[in-house]
Amino acid sequence: MSGIIINPLRSEWPELIKRPQISSKDLDATILEIINTVKESGDEAVKEYSRKFHDFAPENLWVTEDEIASSVKKIDKDLKKAILVAKRNIEKFHKRQVEKVKKIETLKGIVCWRKSVPVEKVGLYVPGGSAPLFSTLLMLAIPAKIAGCNTITVTTPANKSGDVDVAILFVANILGLKNIYKGGGAQAIAALAYGTQTVEKVDKIFGPGNQYVTCAKKLINIDGVAIDMLAGPSELAVYADDTCVPEFVAADLLSQAEHGPDSQVVLVAVKEQIIDKVIQQIDAQLPLLPRAEIVEKSLLNRRFLVIENEDQAFDFLNAYAPEHLIIASENAEPLSERVRNAGSVFLGNFSPESAGDYASGTNHSLPTNGLAKTFSGVSVDSFVKKITFQKIDNKGIKNIGKTVETMAAAEGLSAHKNAVSIRLKKIRDGKI
Amino acid sequence: MSGIIINPLRSEWPELIKRPQISSKDLDATILEIINTVKESGDEAVKEYSRKFHDFAPENLWVTEDEIASSVKKIDKDLKKAILVAKRNIEKFHKRQVEKVKKIETLKGIVCWRKSVPVEKVGLYVPGGSAPLFSTLLMLAIPAKIAGCNTITVTTPANKSGDVDVAILFVANILGLKNIYKGGGAQAIAALAYGTQTVEKVDKIFGPGNQYVTCAKKLINIDGVAIDMLAGPSELAVYADDTCVPEFVAADLLSQAEHGPDSQVVLVAVKEQIIDKVIQQIDAQLPLLPRAEIVEKSLLNRRFLVIENEDQAFDFLNAYAPEHLIIASENAEPLSERVRNAGSVFLGNFSPESAGDYASGTNHSLPTNGLAKTFSGVSVDSFVKKITFQKIDNKGIKNIGKTVETMAAAEGLSAHKNAVSIRLKKIRDGKI
Repeated sequence: MSGIIINPLRSEWPELIKRPQISSKDLDATILEIINTVKESGDEAVKEYSRKFHDFAPENLWVTEDEIASSVKKIDKDLKKAILVAKRNIEKFHKRQVEKVKKIETLKGIVCWRKSVPVEKVGLYVPGGSAPLFSTLLMLAIPAKIAGCNTITVTTPANKSGDVDVAILFVANILGLKNIYKGGGAQAIAALAYGTQTVEKVDKIFGPGNQYVTCAKKLINIDGVAIDMLAGPSELAVYADDTCVPEFVAADLLSQAEHGPDSQVVLVAVKEQIIDKVIQQIDAQLPLLPRAEIVEKSLLNRRFLVIENEDQAFDFLNAYAPEHLIIASENAEPLSERVRNAGSVFLGNFSPESAGDYASGTNHSLPTNGLAKTFSGVSVDSFVKKITFQKIDNKGIKNIGKTVETMAAAEGLSAHKNAVSIRLKKIRDGKI
Repeated sequence: MSGIIINPLRSEWPELIKRPQISSKDLDATILEIINTVKESGDEAVKEYSRKFHDFAPENLWVTEDEIASSVKKIDKDLKKAILVAKRNIEKFHKRQVEKVKKIETLKGIVCWRKSVPVEKVGLYVPGGSAPLFSTLLMLAIPAKIAGCNTITVTTPANKSGDVDVAILFVANILGLKNIYKGGGAQAIAALAYGTQTVEKVDKIFGPGNQYVTCAKKLINIDGVAIDMLAGPSELAVYADDTCVPEFVAADLLSQAEHGPDSQVVLVAVKEQIIDKVIQQIDAQLPLLPRAEIVEKSLLNRRFLVIENEDQAFDFLNAYAPEHLIIASENAEPLSERVRNAGSVFLGNFSPESAGDYASGTNHSLPTNGLAKTFSGVSVDSFVKKITFQKIDNKGIKNIGKTVETMAAAEGLSAHKNAVSIRLKKIRDGKI
């Protein structure tokens, strides 16, 4: 491995923060056709595409209650225990995101507040493919349940026998999820967005997926259906100083790289020797990994940089705006104050990204591709709207009346002014 | 006026909740050309389009410090006072939206938290046109300031003499806004999205506008620039029962209708007599309004419905998901519990929408066109990302280690597992 970049000029940063390009424009026409076919033919189209693209053809597109119930017996005991620990932590962290109603009297007689009201119908896409991502179901369904969404529809590809993975069913079981649809890919997104004979159209669609799923989410979003975000390939940036443990840094970079050949890892170290040590460790650990081939491809996208100046190092990281950021330093907590753009930040030598991916409590659905500059990861917020309310009494309207009349008049909106004047007059006339 | 709909069947609702159609697809090509020209030629293109479409041609595209400072002397005294009251209320309401950091120990040795970090660079579009909407600047800039955004760039069309309205400058003055760009329409959105010789590219663009502005926001959003939301024509729904004041309801509906010919008003009353009385009041008040012509056009889009059953009435209103909802009833507070989809709700007979539009404290940038099902209005949240952090110590990783290893293995992600195992081993071996 080579290609260490030493103290790059700021003018070189725009090139260095670019993500590996994946062309998706060519997909639009193909995916649009899938969407339109599902719009027309509904479940039959989903079945047909599942046969064609995913090699499964379930008779029944819905998981039965029995299948969900029996997962409790079928699941591996250790995995069961692990999932329950993860559920508990994720619930504990996300429950604190619920915003309580705070009534604020802005002026005597004027009380304003904001109330979180659940998005009524949500659809959760859980990728299957090479491995069924039951952890994604935990990360999406727990905040949806806490938010209080009325209808939660899960869609996930089945395996070749037409069954959904037992761990996904177990998660559904412990979270009380009843609607599990056997559909993967763009066709499943279309089914959630527009409804089918058996799928109820949802208000908002969540969940990661491959480029086909992402393209479908993009297209239905342009058509007015809400989505969580457009997930790109996963990313990790690590900041490492002299107090890091190169062995751990290497393991963290490799864990990110195994996601897929288009994943990206970035390492910003304050000294070249640190990178040398990390590379030694990568070379030692990589051959032992079952997904070494994917990791090697992904490492072609790596950026290993030495940035000696701490300010500049964090400026660079903020410009990159990583999905995941590990601060591999014993000094991580004060350093974390410098983070302005990131999805989720891991502090110190004992906070591997994989803890957050699965079980520490934070959400793993995070903004990629620089979106962390403006987007947050999935949280309870993603499953609610915050509706504002105000209650003004006759004293309140007297207190604010003149202000509103004056401003409305200045904006040339006489009817806005009149809506206040007519009330003030009625009060003045003692008619109310 | 006629066309009262009595107890419509649920099967008729989809037609009744449709908004007046505005075709914007034909605009895409025109607006894309404007955007591309601004990308290429920057400020000169903005100037040229301003000359062409807005009939102003300022020599200097930026408002000077002197212009901002002198607004304090130029502004009408009553308006000055009104704006200061509104500012105070809006600040009071929005400051309470700031989320404090809550550190949560999910397991011994694992501390997770979420921190609101400002979006660094934001662009605020303030419509000018027929009237300069200084209230919009208050509604956008106050939460941006509270969030702590680094760069706040305001863009607004100038008048024919090339000057920006004094009320807008006064708001800029009291909020300490320094960057006011004289640009309106799609060209201003393009300048914010991609930068020009003098405009710094922003991370997120806020603000309402006409169909050209909205189309530009749509296109730059598809291209990856964040926006607050796509604003459609403004809407008001009123729920009225026997305790409403028909005179006030009429005034509120008229205030909404004066926004523009494509605005929509909806009245859901529990009895036909209420609607009759409201219509009488509309007929009495309308001729007195300066914008009567616009109001009359807008009223063509009205929906006046009698829905006798309270449950069904609110089901209908929730299906409509209005931007603004007035509950014109002395029983408004308990009724408001039934609201599931709305932008902002006004309770009782003394809470006109215009209070919230200007000065009560709530934000007036709200989701339209049914987006209230999934979107919130602008708030401090809109100007921050909530970044998650976690700090795990060596006890913490021992507590969570097995859980993560088991889950990672079950998802076939060995390197994820290894990132934990390698740490556990080091601790076990006493090497750290």
